[in-house]
Amino acid sequence: MTLAPSLVALSENDFGADKPREECGVFGLYSPVPNDLAWLTYLGMFALQHRGQEAAGMCVSDGEKFHVEKDLGLVTQVFDERRLDSVRLANARVSIGHVRYSTTGSNLRFNAQPLTTRTNKGILGMAHNGNFVNALEVRAEMLGEGALFQTTNDSEVMLNLIARESHMDLVEATAAAMRRLKGGYACVLMNRHALIGFRDPHGVRPLVIGQREDGAYALASEPCALYAVGARLLRDVQPGELVWVDRDGLHSLMVEPRAPTPCAFEWIYFARSDSQLDGIDAHESRIRMGEQLAREFPVDADIVVPVPDSGIGAAIGYARASGIPFDYGLYKNPYAGRTFIAPTQEARELKVKMKLSPTSAVQGRRVILVDDSIVRGTTSRQIVNLLRDAGATEVHFRVCSPPITHPCFYGIDTAARKELVASTHTQEEIRQLIGADTLAFISERGLREAVGGPGLCMACFNGNYPAGTPLLNDVDKLALEV
Amino acid sequence: MTLAPSLVALSENDFGADKPREECGVFGLYSPVPNDLAWLTYLGMFALQHRGQEAAGMCVSDGEKFHVEKDLGLVTQVFDERRLDSVRLANARVSIGHVRYSTTGSNLRFNAQPLTTRTNKGILGMAHNGNFVNALEVRAEMLGEGALFQTTNDSEVMLNLIARESHMDLVEATAAAMRRLKGGYACVLMNRHALIGFRDPHGVRPLVIGQREDGAYALASEPCALYAVGARLLRDVQPGELVWVDRDGLHSLMVEPRAPTPCAFEWIYFARSDSQLDGIDAHESRIRMGEQLAREFPVDADIVVPVPDSGIGAAIGYARASGIPFDYGLYKNPYAGRTFIAPTQEARELKVKMKLSPTSAVQGRRVILVDDSIVRGTTSRQIVNLLRDAGATEVHFRVCSPPITHPCFYGIDTAARKELVASTHTQEEIRQLIGADTLAFISERGLREAVGGPGLCMACFNGNYPAGTPLLNDVDKLALEV
Amino acid sequence: MTLAPSLVALSENDFGADKPREECGVFGLYSPVPNDLAWLTYLGMFALQHRGQEAAGMCVSDGEKFHVEKDLGLVTQVFDERRLDSVRLANARVSIGHVRYSTTGSNLRFNAQPLTTRTNKGILGMAHNGNFVNALEVRAEMLGEGALFQTTNDSEVMLNLIARESHMDLVEATAAAMRRLKGGYACVLMNRHALIGFRDPHGVRPLVIGQREDGAYALASEPCALYAVGARLLRDVQPGELVWVDRDGLHSLMVEPRAPTPCAFEWIYFARSDSQLDGIDAHESRIRMGEQLAREFPVDADIVVPVPDSGIGAAIGYARASGIPFDYGLYKNPYAGRTFIAPTQEARELKVKMKLSPTSAVQGRRVILVDDSIVRGTTSRQIVNLLRDAGATEVHFRVCSPPITHPCFYGIDTAARKELVASTHTQEEIRQLIGADTLAFISERGLREAVGGPGLCMACFNGNYPAGTPLLNDVDKLALEV
Amino acid sequence: MTLAPSLVALSENDFGADKPREECGVFGLYSPVPNDLAWLTYLGMFALQHRGQEAAGMCVSDGEKFHVEKDLGLVTQVFDERRLDSVRLANARVSIGHVRYSTTGSNLRFNAQPLTTRTNKGILGMAHNGNFVNALEVRAEMLGEGALFQTTNDSEVMLNLIARESHMDLVEATAAAMRRLKGGYACVLMNRHALIGFRDPHGVRPLVIGQREDGAYALASEPCALYAVGARLLRDVQPGELVWVDRDGLHSLMVEPRAPTPCAFEWIYFARSDSQLDGIDAHESRIRMGEQLAREFPVDADIVVPVPDSGIGAAIGYARASGIPFDYGLYKNPYAGRTFIAPTQEARELKVKMKLSPTSAVQGRRVILVDDSIVRGTTSRQIVNLLRDAGATEVHFRVCSPPITHPCFYGIDTAARKELVASTHTQEEIRQLIGADTLAFISERGLREAVGGPGLCMACFNGNYPAGTPLLNDVDKLALEV
Repeated sequence: MTLAPSLVALSENDFGADKPREECGVFGLYSPVPNDLAWLTYLGMFALQHRGQEAAGMCVSDGEKFHVEKDLGLVTQVFDERRLDSVRLANARVSIGHVRYSTTGSNLRFNAQPLTTRTNKGILGMAHNGNFVNALEVRAEMLGEGALFQTTNDSEVMLNLIARESHMDLVEATAAAMRRLKGGYACVLMNRHALIGFRDPHGVRPLVIGQREDGAYALASEPCALYAVGARLLRDVQPGELVWVDRDGLHSLMVEPRAPTPCAFEWIYFARSDSQLDGIDAHESRIRMGEQLAREFPVDADIVVPVPDSGIGAAIGYARASGIPFDYGLYKNPYAGRTFIAPTQEARELKVKMKLSPTSAVQGRRVILVDDSIVRGTTSRQIVNLLRDAGATEVHFRVCSPPITHPCFYGIDTAARKELVASTHTQEEIRQLIGADTLAFISERGLREAVGGPGLCMACFNGNYPAGTPLLNDVDKLALEV
Repeated sequence: MTLAPSLVALSENDFGADKPREECGVFGLYSPVPNDLAWLTYLGMFALQHRGQEAAGMCVSDGEKFHVEKDLGLVTQVFDERRLDSVRLANARVSIGHVRYSTTGSNLRFNAQPLTTRTNKGILGMAHNGNFVNALEVRAEMLGEGALFQTTNDSEVMLNLIARESHMDLVEATAAAMRRLKGGYACVLMNRHALIGFRDPHGVRPLVIGQREDGAYALASEPCALYAVGARLLRDVQPGELVWVDRDGLHSLMVEPRAPTPCAFEWIYFARSDSQLDGIDAHESRIRMGEQLAREFPVDADIVVPVPDSGIGAAIGYARASGIPFDYGLYKNPYAGRTFIAPTQEARELKVKMKLSPTSAVQGRRVILVDDSIVRGTTSRQIVNLLRDAGATEVHFRVCSPPITHPCFYGIDTAARKELVASTHTQEEIRQLIGADTLAFISERGLREAVGGPGLCMACFNGNYPAGTPLLNDVDKLALEV
Repeated sequence: MTLAPSLVALSENDFGADKPREECGVFGLYSPVPNDLAWLTYLGMFALQHRGQEAAGMCVSDGEKFHVEKDLGLVTQVFDERRLDSVRLANARVSIGHVRYSTTGSNLRFNAQPLTTRTNKGILGMAHNGNFVNALEVRAEMLGEGALFQTTNDSEVMLNLIARESHMDLVEATAAAMRRLKGGYACVLMNRHALIGFRDPHGVRPLVIGQREDGAYALASEPCALYAVGARLLRDVQPGELVWVDRDGLHSLMVEPRAPTPCAFEWIYFARSDSQLDGIDAHESRIRMGEQLAREFPVDADIVVPVPDSGIGAAIGYARASGIPFDYGLYKNPYAGRTFIAPTQEARELKVKMKLSPTSAVQGRRVILVDDSIVRGTTSRQIVNLLRDAGATEVHFRVCSPPITHPCFYGIDTAARKELVASTHTQEEIRQLIGADTLAFISERGLREAVGGPGLCMACFNGNYPAGTPLLNDVDKLALEV
Repeated sequence: MTLAPSLVALSENDFGADKPREECGVFGLYSPVPNDLAWLTYLGMFALQHRGQEAAGMCVSDGEKFHVEKDLGLVTQVFDERRLDSVRLANARVSIGHVRYSTTGSNLRFNAQPLTTRTNKGILGMAHNGNFVNALEVRAEMLGEGALFQTTNDSEVMLNLIARESHMDLVEATAAAMRRLKGGYACVLMNRHALIGFRDPHGVRPLVIGQREDGAYALASEPCALYAVGARLLRDVQPGELVWVDRDGLHSLMVEPRAPTPCAFEWIYFARSDSQLDGIDAHESRIRMGEQLAREFPVDADIVVPVPDSGIGAAIGYARASGIPFDYGLYKNPYAGRTFIAPTQEARELKVKMKLSPTSAVQGRRVILVDDSIVRGTTSRQIVNLLRDAGATEVHFRVCSPPITHPCFYGIDTAARKELVASTHTQEEIRQLIGADTLAFISERGLREAVGGPGLCMACFNGNYPAGTPLLNDVDKLALEV
């Protein structure tokens, strides 16, 4: 007999559903000497797994063969022994890899990257992170010219633009396509003989270059993936720069450099704490965010507790600047995140309870809780409740990002605008909603100082979109018709 | 400890590796009334499973949504409950399905059909059986014009041709594409509102039309798939004909009718024994082949034994015409055909031994053994050996097809020419090779009479290719470069 | 959106649900020379797959190690490369294997055989076919003495009896256990050094002995499994005989020989057509059943059509004795039998329609249809309908077994008595129910003559149970309480 | 083409191979009111997942039915929707659950717990954590009396002892069995109507009792599992106590109370930081261990860095007592721990590199690294190397446990004695081996003070085994013979 309350399966994504999400991570290698590129690419993708958990794929070429494998799942799920072996080539020269957090849709499997295609420039493989804001417009134009689109993937628009320039070579055609497409993006592209990488004019999405001692070059969304393959960080690809590596080494072309405005959320949350982007260390910037929060919003309390793992750096910073002891008040279950079965009506609460549980540290204590962001606020409320149930006498919520009020058009999935609690509620309303004694978000200015360095894209906080917005109002209609 | 002789897995295909193989089966539905098209398409594809075992897929549309699912495996493996449910639509109007026996390659998964694409004519789904002999030539031309090719699938060439004619409507553009591509093929094509089917000018590959009592039209490679969905056979699509079904009913356009030369092997082996193609019943034609063989090559013996299941009809015919009793001398294991583990060095012999074993009927008897064809001869030799080991005193081998000496360019995978035993050995040499007392192949004339009806494509027996041959000598080179 | 009619998965068993079912097949090997016993056992089990499709397992020992693997599924599903490799031993000496069609229950997995256990006689592995009619009684007695029962498997009762006789050696203890347990059974048993086989006093269930040229002995439910491992048939194990093989060769002990009454259904349906049991060939006995049916129940008609595959032999016999041509009027889909998805309300009809479809041979013909048995009658009715829909003008149903009116207590699952159509309907009512023009079952006498040889167990036809019946009325209660 | 270095799959266990391992976690529920016990048990087991990752299982009964499911894998892998649903009962009354880290062996699947068996006391389910040191001796005795052993699981010995006492009721028989078996263990046992729990005389392994607001009682290895099902901690089961819950509530019997010596490693490493055992909070005791280490082995440095996650508490304590700042110097990849593919020769190094990577915090800093234990030392050496490669100028290694020099006989898998680096090397040699500037282990006295409370079992540090040692020298021989 089956019990009335039916069971549902909560996936990896459901557990993280109240966080902004990076849509992708990219990786690439060019090796002048024999290397097991399939396996190195697997390592690089694994190091970028935090940037996308729904699909993974790679291409490898030895100058003749061109292998590709991709599917839904984590890197380690997609690539078992048999499948990783199937893309290995004894004299591999070029490879790219991709991890994806993807939007929903019936064709998820077919949207996995890299996208591979035969063109007048030979066979090409491409993977991207980010978003072209005018992709639908360009797509509609090319459909009229007789182009086919087999996916809803932005890479396919870029590849069509590249193929259309049949009189140019691959680098020229790619540069031409960069000029035509707007937005925030970082891409890797390969044919049988070369690896190409390029970054949008404002450098919204990150891309770094590294090199191994044996001379092999690597491109990656974050340096942690370089370190994973034994490469040292050479430098960031510059905003608007196109780089390529072939038998003659590394080349660069500045296609469309503009004022740099890298995405602030890379430092707040996305980047691994062992990564440095545009010269700024992620862990250190988080400590500075915590210090800044302590200066901007001090409060008398007994302990500073991070929401693990992303709040750890900022909590250390807050503790240091305030002199209030850091403590480990929330245990994070390392087995949470995998598919979990729950009765339908309890599923929502469980997402947090399965993952976090309070330790004795919070009992009878006034707690300063440090988290990276608040999107919908539902998770925050549950965490505050957990702490109170465990005996915390006060909970002071400190957030490393300003209130998120606008959607991102550059590849980050926050939530629909109406779901963003900060776009529909005052700060005081949010405080009441989540049940905190006090609530404070870091100021935009404070965040900018904590990160330091160049200008930052803060569009999701203030609506100033440095790299443009989609041009068409009828996005949904177009998507349906074509 | 692992034993020295390593184990290998023999798949479905290994068991049938010494037979010609149909490369595909196609199916399509248009329903003016609500029907569960996903499930009906599943039924139709299942009835065509014998035409392709390596991949299966379908598209379904309700006029707005357009779902597609496809993967490697049998129909019943690809479509489990969850996956079949995922393509069901409450008001489904149009659907197509495909089963594929595919050539090897690293991208098998991505080559599965139907192929779906967005074009200036809306979203299209297409599946084909057969082969365009000038596909590579057309492809090279379109690459030069900036087209992308994401698969090595002929359907993609057809879809590019259709999309290129941006000034024509879908039917006109499809007819234009038919005129441009040569070869032997049968295709189904759908958008959100209509189902299209077309057959090559010579009708080399089959395609039939049926209708259900509720008015829904069906297209299929064989009538058995019509019956499976409760439709009766209306007629064959004519050679060179394009038909389409929309809200106004069934329409026809004779695009390029030529002298009909349907593939002889459909009656010899491919078609299910409950199918009729171009007005000729498969089971009856096989009985006539057996009768013809008995007349052409009589021999004194005790029993007539079929190689099950494909030789049963002809063995019945041989027994009738000769007066020698039919008997069931080879048991066919119904569990053979699934993946089977074997030590590497024994794998070859096992392919036959696991599938067939002699019954007591052959002991002490002079046996006439009736089979549909001989490709490499290796299987035939093993079957003769089995019969002798079981006590058959004589084995007289009778074959329902003439010797296969030429490759097929119209979608049938026989074997490389050098592997075709009849292209490198005399009939007497083959007899010695397989160890039979006598060996006889039906004559071309005899086969033509047994099938009856129109002209037949017998290119694999005599090298006369009615629908042309590939134009480029450098097929392999092209495949690599583009 | 999900459509109203929900989908269900029809399994292998649903397709065959209207047939009697053998509950198991057993196999064993003892090799004095190094042999790959794991793989040979796999071959033997595969040849017995028709006797049980729900679970498979094997034990292998080299005199020291003792490996076992078993699980739900077909032999080829349970034993993939990795798992088969895991039971291989370089110096394997003894092995047993088992295929099971099992009754339903929540613990199916734990009931898979062979059962392995550590006892005062060392580690033992055991597998059985058939049923001990007094197992529950013995079990209750042993529970009182402090025994544990971890399965509901009869082998466990036998093993407890063997272990209880701690003063006897293994052969003596097994003989003692045979004397205590009643019913119809054939068992294989092994320790690290010897293979044992035994058959019930009446020989209801079959067991044969074979030998390979290299001296290895094999035990199997049917000779086809001997042939599969390259062994020739030496002889049947005699009713009531216990045989064992060890380093000194083959030994025999007649424990409890009684008048032989082997199960008639082995020849009617269970045994493969290439098997011989108790000296009688299965295929030949089926031809004689058909001949007998033609003599007992002649009818004027155009063709004789078998229900494939089990009715083929008898249809050949009927055709020979009657002079009416044999024809292949029902195509059997080789892909039926695997899990198939269907809307709930159509599932029942589909079980037959997916498997069988009529060929043109029956159109406009008076058909004599030959099948092995009728259990519930539902399948028979659907087959008759199929033939009529395809244009058969008359359908004369001929059955190779007498009406099944009683349950089997010796290991065959027919159906509950109330579901047996022949126990609740007259023959004329059955004819009307299935819609045949005439219906005839072979007579008991006619069946006995067709099989020939010794006495036969015909309990399911006449209620005479030669090997006893269960002693306890409260079977269900006991099963629940213990 | 396959590359020379073959790939291997590193599993969950390989990643943690240099840690002591708890062998199991147990859980049980008795509910006087309707509750979804299957799902609550799943929750409880999930909260105990850190205590065993190789197998999971549960039993549920409603007073009549008795369901069991178990298999290899994590709780969330074994129990998908279908399988969890299969053990749900509308009126469930009693349930037990088990997670297992198991020793290797061919029969792993069959050794999964709970073990279920039919006995003269009805059907029983049992699961245990820990080890009976005289199990083999008792087993040998019972084999001689005719008992069967189907697993190598200690629970089976206990169940045989219980069944043997056929004149006693279940509680009396269990108490008798407790008196017969020696060692360190905590067990849960159920029949259809009652839940039983018991703990060894010295309380080496933990067991706690909780209660939900609706009156349902829970037993668990740790309180975190009580909280997971909404129960509050009532108390610890006492050393040597047997408790049972039935319709009359909670009962207790002190069977064999001795001086309490709970396992010190529960506080050092095993218990979740949100658990309290025998009245002592895990997180707080770890902070005290760090403080103690700082007092015993101070050193001048820049930052205190934990090996996450187990070293976090102690690192906080060390930082507090020393005044040296705590920092997050090692990033832990949350995706490590799943199966990972690696070339054979690089696999060893990768186990650490895939899991941990240094942040910028360590660059140019003198680092105090705090870890819970050193078993083989290989992991420690790699971590020290990682820090040095990242620019740490000094690495001072501080360990929360004394050197491990002896094996555990009470259910903890450390390593074979010869693999324990501290049993074969001096402390200075270990320091050189792992490459630290200084190395210090907490003193036994210091550890005792940090934990506080009762006596502790420190056998793995000093060889004093409070609950006895195995009596037989010929363990391996016995295992083979029976």
